[in-house]
Amino acid sequence: MQTFKMQNMNKLSQQQIKKRLGQEAAKLIQKGMHVGLGTGTTSHCFIEALAQRCREEQLNIVTTASSKASSNLALQLGLKVVDLDSIGTLDMTIDGADEVDPQKRLIKGAGGAHLREKIVAAKSEELVIIIDESKLVDQLGKHKLPVEIVPFGHECTKIHLEALGVQATWRQDEQHSLFVTDNSHYLLDLRFPSPLDSPEEWDQVIRSIPGVVETGFFFNLASRILIGFADGQIGVRD
Amino acid sequence: MQTFKMQNMNKLSQQQIKKRLGQEAAKLIQKGMHVGLGTGTTSHCFIEALAQRCREEQLNIVTTASSKASSNLALQLGLKVVDLDSIGTLDMTIDGADEVDPQKRLIKGAGGAHLREKIVAAKSEELVIIIDESKLVDQLGKHKLPVEIVPFGHECTKIHLEALGVQATWRQDEQHSLFVTDNSHYLLDLRFPSPLDSPEEWDQVIRSIPGVVETGFFFNLASRILIGFADGQIGVRD
Repeated sequence: MQTFKMQNMNKLSQQQIKKRLGQEAAKLIQKGMHVGLGTGTTSHCFIEALAQRCREEQLNIVTTASSKASSNLALQLGLKVVDLDSIGTLDMTIDGADEVDPQKRLIKGAGGAHLREKIVAAKSEELVIIIDESKLVDQLGKHKLPVEIVPFGHECTKIHLEALGVQATWRQDEQHSLFVTDNSHYLLDLRFPSPLDSPEEWDQVIRSIPGVVETGFFFNLASRILIGFADGQIGVRD
Repeated sequence: MQTFKMQNMNKLSQQQIKKRLGQEAAKLIQKGMHVGLGTGTTSHCFIEALAQRCREEQLNIVTTASSKASSNLALQLGLKVVDLDSIGTLDMTIDGADEVDPQKRLIKGAGGAHLREKIVAAKSEELVIIIDESKLVDQLGKHKLPVEIVPFGHECTKIHLEALGVQATWRQDEQHSLFVTDNSHYLLDLRFPSPLDSPEEWDQVIRSIPGVVETGFFFNLASRILIGFADGQIGVRD
């Protein structure tokens, strides 16, 4: 793993680490690229850094967003945002993650956008993940696995998932109603009894349940991980 | 396979066969049952026959529907229809199918309702399929496989599916716009180069593409098939 030392070696806050990751990721974007924008606080730092680069240089890039929130932010900051279906090829997508294992397998969805994030990622030549070191895990499934669920019969779907031996909790919004995704689905957060030896098998079993739209597992999608450390270093996992 | 001969041995029309299948299936419903209602012209014949039985006998049944169309028809005919999530257990669901193979594996979705049909079927103690003999196939994949697709990035999803070597066509409504399912998704009809040796593998590959919500494959769900023949016989495959 390569590491780059910062000039300032004081301990950074979470927000400072995210900002630094956003800036580092923005340096990867080259003139004329088609760029996918992730969702969540770290991705938003990237969008801000990218917009700043675009203001300072003639990058002439086109972006597409994995959520309404990221689209709105990018538009506010003056970036050109188009629909995924009209952008053609996507050169690079920058996004965050909730868990990253040594094989660059991910769990995503804490921000509630993993379905669109996965569709965008699947269209990208390269997916670069930006995380702080707390997101590194030996095995996936340490925290929660978000799963997007069709509203019709959603309580039945939850019962089927619970029968697999997982704990399932509906994601709620700030008004304590069911959280509704940009795709008008609900979100179940699954908790496993222990970290997962075989996340691919779990993914397959969970997906086979009618009413499940998409899991937060990302396999064979991330090409590079940028890891921000509190001491100011940025690690790269290729 | 058991067969029951009709008194009238004249050739029946398609509509007469469907009506006969609906009546035969309605006889399977017992007092107090919780019944799942399928979608499509054959299922609608069942709903009509069931409503007639309910008018003539005190069956005291509760139903849940796999589409808005079936729900509307059942309500019009005086059946009690409740949400899937509030019905508790489902004793029996009666539904049609587009293709049925010798292992009782199915392809469904010509009526555009296979996602809800699968959610309802997965909750039922028993799924009884009613078809005319033209739906029997040696191998699945003879005609089309409907696949429900998330609107976000749907053209990307289509490209990913076509890369599997299948022909993919958007289902259209009567106004030649994209057909929108009850779940606000789109439908792609896939055509395979030849009937499928291993539909389970195809199902897994198709499902693994981000943006795919559900395929029209139904495995390990149908417990009994009622087959209507033009000569008036009804065959049963248990």
